Amino acid sequence: MAYNLLKGKKGIIFGALDEKSMAWKAALRCYEEGAQIVLTNAPVAMRMGEIKKLAEACGNAPVIGADVTSQEDIDKLFTQSLEHFGGPIDFILHSVGMSVNMRKGNPYTDLNYAFTEKTYDISALSLHRVLQTAYKMDAIADWGSVVALTYIAAQRVFPDYSEMADAKSLLESIARSFGYHYAKKRKVRINTVSQSPTRTTAGSGVKGFDGFITYAEKMSPLGNATADDCANYVVSLFSDLTRMVTMQNLFHDGGFSFTGVSAEVIEQMEK
Amino acid sequence: MAYNLLKGKKGIIFGALDEKSMAWKAALRCYEEGAQIVLTNAPVAMRMGEIKKLAEACGNAPVIGADVTSQEDIDKLFTQSLEHFGGPIDFILHSVGMSVNMRKGNPYTDLNYAFTEKTYDISALSLHRVLQTAYKMDAIADWGSVVALTYIAAQRVFPDYSEMADAKSLLESIARSFGYHYAKKRKVRINTVSQSPTRTTAGSGVKGFDGFITYAEKMSPLGNATADDCANYVVSLFSDLTRMVTMQNLFHDGGFSFTGVSAEVIEQMEK
Amino acid sequence: MAYNLLKGKKGIIFGALDEKSMAWKAALRCYEEGAQIVLTNAPVAMRMGEIKKLAEACGNAPVIGADVTSQEDIDKLFTQSLEHFGGPIDFILHSVGMSVNMRKGNPYTDLNYAFTEKTYDISALSLHRVLQTAYKMDAIADWGSVVALTYIAAQRVFPDYSEMADAKSLLESIARSFGYHYAKKRKVRINTVSQSPTRTTAGSGVKGFDGFITYAEKMSPLGNATADDCANYVVSLFSDLTRMVTMQNLFHDGGFSFTGVSAEVIEQMEK
Amino acid sequence: MAYNLLKGKKGIIFGALDEKSMAWKAALRCYEEGAQIVLTNAPVAMRMGEIKKLAEACGNAPVIGADVTSQEDIDKLFTQSLEHFGGPIDFILHSVGMSVNMRKGNPYTDLNYAFTEKTYDISALSLHRVLQTAYKMDAIADWGSVVALTYIAAQRVFPDYSEMADAKSLLESIARSFGYHYAKKRKVRINTVSQSPTRTTAGSGVKGFDGFITYAEKMSPLGNATADDCANYVVSLFSDLTRMVTMQNLFHDGGFSFTGVSAEVIEQMEK
Repeated sequence: MAYNLLKGKKGIIFGALDEKSMAWKAALRCYEEGAQIVLTNAPVAMRMGEIKKLAEACGNAPVIGADVTSQEDIDKLFTQSLEHFGGPIDFILHSVGMSVNMRKGNPYTDLNYAFTEKTYDISALSLHRVLQTAYKMDAIADWGSVVALTYIAAQRVFPDYSEMADAKSLLESIARSFGYHYAKKRKVRINTVSQSPTRTTAGSGVKGFDGFITYAEKMSPLGNATADDCANYVVSLFSDLTRMVTMQNLFHDGGFSFTGVSAEVIEQMEK
Repeated sequence: MAYNLLKGKKGIIFGALDEKSMAWKAALRCYEEGAQIVLTNAPVAMRMGEIKKLAEACGNAPVIGADVTSQEDIDKLFTQSLEHFGGPIDFILHSVGMSVNMRKGNPYTDLNYAFTEKTYDISALSLHRVLQTAYKMDAIADWGSVVALTYIAAQRVFPDYSEMADAKSLLESIARSFGYHYAKKRKVRINTVSQSPTRTTAGSGVKGFDGFITYAEKMSPLGNATADDCANYVVSLFSDLTRMVTMQNLFHDGGFSFTGVSAEVIEQMEK
Repeated sequence: MAYNLLKGKKGIIFGALDEKSMAWKAALRCYEEGAQIVLTNAPVAMRMGEIKKLAEACGNAPVIGADVTSQEDIDKLFTQSLEHFGGPIDFILHSVGMSVNMRKGNPYTDLNYAFTEKTYDISALSLHRVLQTAYKMDAIADWGSVVALTYIAAQRVFPDYSEMADAKSLLESIARSFGYHYAKKRKVRINTVSQSPTRTTAGSGVKGFDGFITYAEKMSPLGNATADDCANYVVSLFSDLTRMVTMQNLFHDGGFSFTGVSAEVIEQMEK
Repeated sequence: MAYNLLKGKKGIIFGALDEKSMAWKAALRCYEEGAQIVLTNAPVAMRMGEIKKLAEACGNAPVIGADVTSQEDIDKLFTQSLEHFGGPIDFILHSVGMSVNMRKGNPYTDLNYAFTEKTYDISALSLHRVLQTAYKMDAIADWGSVVALTYIAAQRVFPDYSEMADAKSLLESIARSFGYHYAKKRKVRINTVSQSPTRTTAGSGVKGFDGFITYAEKMSPLGNATADDCANYVVSLFSDLTRMVTMQNLFHDGGFSFTGVSAEVIEQMEK
């Protein structure tokens, strides 16, 4: 069901890899709600992914490849987006993250710090880069809305989530810090959405992910939020209904974050 | 602007006193978004207030007087609402609070405990009573949404807010606790919205309220959220876009909650 | 091992029931560290308990019966304590809580509100009463320290903890609120210690307590904190080393509060 | 006054620059409490500072220069410390932080990312490096205690604190994450202490620092905690009294963190 909540709005969606991606679903829902969209992803991810299909489903949205760690690429992304839209942007979805140490199988107590810096750069500093670039170009319209996806490992330890936990803490801090400055400049709000673990192609790479997701399901009174649910929530945050919400980390997780233990988990403990 | 976000939904709004009330604005916005509404307030508040005008503006919504501390009244409210709607309820807004000690001018270090119990009963336990009654009558539909309004004094001390701070902490805990149980029963979500200080008739009673509100304005990068903003946010929380958000305390405050200090406040300090 | 950390300090310990009680261990450790003590408990608990033995072990500490819901009793407690000590008090331990609904077997969705008010009165408002009485009598010395014991159910739902969760939220709010006022008056600090679940006589009454405690043990990287550990921590909070810590809720739980999931719990999930 | 709280314990103190430093005061207090100490700082900071004086005052403690971003230096530091002590270490104080962008006068909305990475490396990743090195060498004794100093800008925006806020968020996340792993390995606890703004040589470099500190003083019911207070608190966290406290961020700030507004600030607002 569509409500025209984003009619006339223009946005950039980062990180749609394939149809399981949260960014993929979000792009579709934003389009359904009347928004115009530019899609972007790392050139390498675009080769693996099927982003062209998504672009078609979103009214032939332009796809602009950009490595989030490259200033040149991000500059180009904004220049071309502003040109395409013929004006400033109303919303941005940042759904980007990658841990080099996890890929290489390095445990948290044996990190390679060159990889760690890469992880921070891709997963957290990239948000600052995007915002700083937009800020300098004055590329976001008054009352614009920026959302970055995160995970509760930023607050509590999930051992297998390793260095990504620290990267997500950094990401949330950057959202908060920049939220202050962009509110002052253009009334732009910046929030993070802390989503249930989701069976995306990216998520599945995490070791012990099945244990994770089962536990989360049992611990969440409403169950885990899906990528479709996330898309709906993100739409509400891009809409004009949530203009005064900023610098928040918003848990979208079926109640996981404030459940200390559930009857189901206690039961499992007694086995 | 209306989106039909609440088309076909039915809800009860507690606490609309006059046109400055947050509940008043919320009722109007819910109606605008396609909802059917029942209005309720304490009989005594209804005599002072102008709730009939609001009822007319909401398509002749029924007005059912109910003292939130009376089980009989709450039973009657639900029975009549279910009858009126011909089916279960989709949303409830709890905007109820009153401190007897503050009215009497008793400082926090000289509370009358009989008054304090009354404050808790009206301002916090009332939410439990409403939810327990609904739960027993099975009066809320699957995926229903309940919102209670609160204030950040539940987390940090605002000395003039006195015992209401404790009442709001209690209210938020009740929302969270009942959120677990109602999610299990009917996928009902329960959240609190922690709103900027607002110049309502109720708010104005708080001593030092002007200092409060100026400070909050200077500390909030987007400024204070108004009652109109609050109504919009509440609509998003009653809509199907936010189904997986539960047991949360959601700050709706222009960024106040995560601003440690602002340039404006520092400036004022240097005077 | 003793350090003389509390040499010359005088304190009141509430809630020592029997030798499993956290207050019991705390009293012994405070005495060991050089403090003089007054013990107090509800007259009815004193009949069941063995507080006289404790009093002897604490250098024949006076035992003053006091119902924490009775103003008269609390007045008497302070008057007699000040007399006994010949001067103001340096520390207070509040370890008091009782849920009437839990005793009666009423689930959270079917509370008797008269019982609930009793629960709040005993478990939370009692701290306000103690502090307000001390404040009016000016019974606490400069840089005094007050600790109340609480549980993480105040932040996250543990379904079997029922209405005590709400009472603990209220308790923590009262500690914070009064902490502001007492800091201004006499530099007195007030904190809550959020302790691991512990096999005390009181704790054992909670339904599903064994599941609780096993889960907590598996989730806490250091394991559950014992009553002895708690006594040590409380000593540090009464000592002059922690003078500037106030209005905090301090988790003393082996890391439970910031562990999202542990390897052990994931393993159990896969069974 | 000394209590012998750290008798027989051995520790490494990072970051004592001059006698205003928090690490300086902490080193003195640890020594006073019976600990043996190794002092370390960046070679460049040691040239500017007066660390030799401190070393003498701490019983001729060895001073081992180490750049926290150099693996070689950190390896050497631990090897030499273990040798000097003839056994494992009981505590570590991490008091290290530096923002290159702040030094260069770059505002938060115009960061140089090469500098930012340097800031993260020095101020946050350094803690991981220290812990990972200790973990691999098995250099910390059972029930050891690690404390890193941080600031509330990690949770709430203080605009002039700029990128250091993000670095502190990262630092706190690293403390939490590693706290899980080191608890499992050796029962080692890792916490951060979030200290009031303090007039150290490092702190004074922050723009608008006077406004900061005045505001913090007015907002803290007990006033700002000094470096001496901090040293006392750190001693309590290194002692055996706090063994079960881990993965926490502990506010040591006279109540600032949980004060929403104070009477003094409201008054100032009305000027």
